[in-house]
Amino acid sequence: MHPKIIIRIAVPKDTVLVLRFIQELAEYEHLSESVFMTEEILYEWISSHWVEVLLAEFQGETVGFALYYFTYSTFRGQPGIYIEDLFVRPQFRNLGIGTSFFRELARIAQSRGCFRLDWMVLDWNSNSIAFYKKLGAYPVEDWTTFRLDGKALEHLADSAASELSSKRQ
Amino acid sequence: MHPKIIIRIAVPKDTVLVLRFIQELAEYEHLSESVFMTEEILYEWISSHWVEVLLAEFQGETVGFALYYFTYSTFRGQPGIYIEDLFVRPQFRNLGIGTSFFRELARIAQSRGCFRLDWMVLDWNSNSIAFYKKLGAYPVEDWTTFRLDGKALEHLADSAASELSSKRQ
Repeated sequence: MHPKIIIRIAVPKDTVLVLRFIQELAEYEHLSESVFMTEEILYEWISSHWVEVLLAEFQGETVGFALYYFTYSTFRGQPGIYIEDLFVRPQFRNLGIGTSFFRELARIAQSRGCFRLDWMVLDWNSNSIAFYKKLGAYPVEDWTTFRLDGKALEHLADSAASELSSKRQ
Repeated sequence: MHPKIIIRIAVPKDTVLVLRFIQELAEYEHLSESVFMTEEILYEWISSHWVEVLLAEFQGETVGFALYYFTYSTFRGQPGIYIEDLFVRPQFRNLGIGTSFFRELARIAQSRGCFRLDWMVLDWNSNSIAFYKKLGAYPVEDWTTFRLDGKALEHLADSAASELSSKRQ
């Protein structure tokens, strides 16, 4: 690790800083219009340990963050870490900060009995993909993520509610 | 919902039953040799609410399970539900039990402020994929899941530990 890089765990009073990083990450991914996170919600998530956040300091300035939560593999019988966000400000890239984040995440995984790190990457983000492969990560093949949200989720939830009420009549 | 289908939430004393279902699911996915879960670990996960489990009863017999945990979208500012396992014993398929599970999961999602359900499916499992699409689910495109585990994870964790010890000298 570069001697000037410090990785530290965020505490609730870092909420505003973490929120700013979330917004910067969304800008970088061309997804700014998709950010609905608020300070109140993020404060609750960090305080409750539903998510954990690492912050990178370089020469005393906070320049990136990694946000993760735990997953549970029933086959393996072990938890894993899902990295929801990992971001380093563009002007601080190629200094080893991303690697420092992954090393710390691996160390945390090991100390908590986790057997893997998972995350998702946008397919156009070839720089990140090359970096992940260099770390020894690989794309998950043979499996596809399915998602149910929006109107379809509402519709399903409503159909469950109406069944329940018809049973109660 | 079929009048004889009851979906109920599992409690710690259902652990042995849930473990049996995990093993049956693994057999179905040709992954039996990958199951390392133990009764002790699963009991802890259910008791601690790290995971939640639904059980389906059909004519008084327990015939399937769904196991899930919560995810956290920093852009959306809302939790989601990740369905780790969903399984109905083969002889009880096409009776509406899978749909009942999804309706109940959608209802739980809505009652907990979750905005989506996510899960992964094996690409060869075309029957399940057709069923998911009929529910209104869709495959996540433009994103690929990356994974870091095994020796690569150990190696990264060790490099973090050795840095730490060299800094402390």
